[in-house]
Amino acid sequence: MVIGAGPAGEVAAGRLAEKGLDVAIVEDRLVGGECSFWACMPSKALLRPYEALAELKRNPGAAEAVTGTLDVAAVLARRDEIVHDMSDDAQLPWLEDRGITLIRGHARLSGVRKVTVNDEEIEAKRAVFLTPGSGPLMPPIDGLDAVDGAWTNRDATIAKEIPESMVVMGGGVVGVEMSQAFQTLGCQVTLIEGARRLLPNEEEFACVELTEALREYGVEIRTGRKATKVEQAEDGMVTVHMDDGSTATGEKLLIALGRQPLTQDVGIEVVGLEPGKGVKVDAHMRVPGHDWLYALGDVNQRALFTHMGKYQARLAADHLLGHDHVLLHGADGPLSPRVVFTEPQVAAVGHTTETADKAGLIVDVITTSTSGNAGGSFYGRDAPGTVQWLVDRERKIIVGCTMTGAEIADFLHAATIAIVGEVPLSRLRHAIPAFPTRSEIWLKLDA
Amino acid sequence: MVIGAGPAGEVAAGRLAEKGLDVAIVEDRLVGGECSFWACMPSKALLRPYEALAELKRNPGAAEAVTGTLDVAAVLARRDEIVHDMSDDAQLPWLEDRGITLIRGHARLSGVRKVTVNDEEIEAKRAVFLTPGSGPLMPPIDGLDAVDGAWTNRDATIAKEIPESMVVMGGGVVGVEMSQAFQTLGCQVTLIEGARRLLPNEEEFACVELTEALREYGVEIRTGRKATKVEQAEDGMVTVHMDDGSTATGEKLLIALGRQPLTQDVGIEVVGLEPGKGVKVDAHMRVPGHDWLYALGDVNQRALFTHMGKYQARLAADHLLGHDHVLLHGADGPLSPRVVFTEPQVAAVGHTTETADKAGLIVDVITTSTSGNAGGSFYGRDAPGTVQWLVDRERKIIVGCTMTGAEIADFLHAATIAIVGEVPLSRLRHAIPAFPTRSEIWLKLDA
Repeated sequence: MVIGAGPAGEVAAGRLAEKGLDVAIVEDRLVGGECSFWACMPSKALLRPYEALAELKRNPGAAEAVTGTLDVAAVLARRDEIVHDMSDDAQLPWLEDRGITLIRGHARLSGVRKVTVNDEEIEAKRAVFLTPGSGPLMPPIDGLDAVDGAWTNRDATIAKEIPESMVVMGGGVVGVEMSQAFQTLGCQVTLIEGARRLLPNEEEFACVELTEALREYGVEIRTGRKATKVEQAEDGMVTVHMDDGSTATGEKLLIALGRQPLTQDVGIEVVGLEPGKGVKVDAHMRVPGHDWLYALGDVNQRALFTHMGKYQARLAADHLLGHDHVLLHGADGPLSPRVVFTEPQVAAVGHTTETADKAGLIVDVITTSTSGNAGGSFYGRDAPGTVQWLVDRERKIIVGCTMTGAEIADFLHAATIAIVGEVPLSRLRHAIPAFPTRSEIWLKLDA
Repeated sequence: MVIGAGPAGEVAAGRLAEKGLDVAIVEDRLVGGECSFWACMPSKALLRPYEALAELKRNPGAAEAVTGTLDVAAVLARRDEIVHDMSDDAQLPWLEDRGITLIRGHARLSGVRKVTVNDEEIEAKRAVFLTPGSGPLMPPIDGLDAVDGAWTNRDATIAKEIPESMVVMGGGVVGVEMSQAFQTLGCQVTLIEGARRLLPNEEEFACVELTEALREYGVEIRTGRKATKVEQAEDGMVTVHMDDGSTATGEKLLIALGRQPLTQDVGIEVVGLEPGKGVKVDAHMRVPGHDWLYALGDVNQRALFTHMGKYQARLAADHLLGHDHVLLHGADGPLSPRVVFTEPQVAAVGHTTETADKAGLIVDVITTSTSGNAGGSFYGRDAPGTVQWLVDRERKIIVGCTMTGAEIADFLHAATIAIVGEVPLSRLRHAIPAFPTRSEIWLKLDA
């Protein structure tokens, strides 16, 4: 039994079914989950056209072919296509092909290996995979409850119209991505972040470059200020009051202040856990003391990324199937690969200087310009960007990498393989990037 | 003493000078070499605008912003910028900053550690690095010598006008890249290749996909036919006669039939070598029996790529400096990384099925679609593309990878690190590509 048909649930179900197990998956919203309909996929649909156009404009000879600006209606139409007009019909054949039983309804744990859904209790033969996902965290800010139509990621990503103005609360990934998307689609965005800077968990240089870019797009950024009160006028305009006395007003308010595990109503009290809290798991994604129960994806709060949920699903499914692939390699959890799809993009894997320091590692910091090589004459030309590697001075391997720049999301996997593979620098120097590609950034390690 | 200021010569000179050696570099053409002025750089300048425009057109919302086609004059102007209007002034500060003496003139070996240039004999204290590069191979085809204005890569890449029609002889990298560039810039290209197919050293699927794309651009492709005679009419039109009796006529004729080492006149007879032939070297790029003489880049015929010439330069310079970094890892020579910058691009590293077979390796072939994942909804959308890995069945490591698709040149380095790093599959499964990027192709290895 798999509770939740988001990416983690689907991958686990698919992998188990392909190995011959009888699998049922329960979903009370849309098969495909938050990622497919309200997060990664629609947000990229809103961001990518601007990015592609920006890159084209940096290419003389092609730039002259552009005489217009983004077609907002076409962007939204393509986004609707990406989310299949909020229908999960397209996801069902994948389940059917694998003989997975789909049960539509809300599932709760109701005993050992028991799940109750639609008033029926079902006993799993082998195991229950709990993957309810996460939802937006709604902070207790004075007046927020009274706002009619405050947005979370679930509203912003599937918005049918671009508001004239918007206040975004929260400068994490959702906040910066949606700020850029809406600003470049014609909205005046004000972005508020309580911490000193945007993307507070990433390297300072990445934050600086992104902040500068967002400002150039016209986003008004206010950091180091916390919202104290929210008010809505009769015409619907929302005003956020901040702790320094300043205010920000917009037609829409987007709350992007973090995520909470969706465990209020999935029966985790049956195994002695507190509803509303995350579910701790061991390295196999099993809930300690309950060898029949795995918890995957955002619910275990290890790494809130679709790709890591899917990874956990592979580990957990393989474990149930008798294969132990667990590797305590140190590129899991907060060290997981992560990409912010703004322009410039921010991509990172492994340690930042801050987490390396906290982990007691002595690292050498090596930096270069993302486009400051021959390849940069053709791709990401004149776009800002920095690459930074952290080299463990003792072990002579890379333990962290942060990159910024135009269209560098797919550069990250080379770093991920180097870090997770613990490839020594003495070997990496023989891995030669092709000329003239921007991958020549890697030559900096053999300078 | 470094003979030749192409990429290999420059990197060697720079590395030695940075370590405190007195370095002189001799060049009789332009500092920067074939790559900077007549090959990699100007060819990419001719190809990239089309590619960027093609990608934009695949992005609804941004595609609507395009109302024109390529501006050929602007493409050529940007190409001129890339080659600095055929001046090497911009390259000189790099040499000056490192205290490298530039000698303009033609250099010949004239004895042990001795080089004669401009009638002056200079004795190197430590070593001579020979890096004269390669030039186009001109085959002995009846009538070819009599053609007025037949082009090689050196003419095509820096052409000031796009001819109305062109016959390209040779379906290797230069041939396919120039065919696409000129065809998409308004020329009617006929491409002739003597072998059964284009890119005969790469995987069949890559050839098939590229051939189909070139045909769609309008290139007329004729493979399996050899030129027997070339004739030029009074109006300048050139006709190539082929061994099946057919003919191809164009305003220009481009010869792209391979490369030859430029050793006719560099004095290699002094060390007992035959002028006009390549120079064999050991793993340190030293000429056997002459411990003062290194031969780098195209001249040693190991791997005719700028990036490999630069790699050889690092190895050789480090060897002279007393560091032995040589690694017989099997991703050198014909197994080197290589990228064809057509649309789709073709990128490969390590073995093909054919070379793996010849090497006696038993490999499992794993393939997937380059854009058949969530990332492909946004990048390279609806563009053809295939990824193929070769896994050594015994050692459980990747020994070859070939990729095709839109803008995948920078995907290759992840494969290069995996292959050169000999990262086991059991470890690679923990290197997680970020969602939604096309790097999720790598998940296929953990399917």
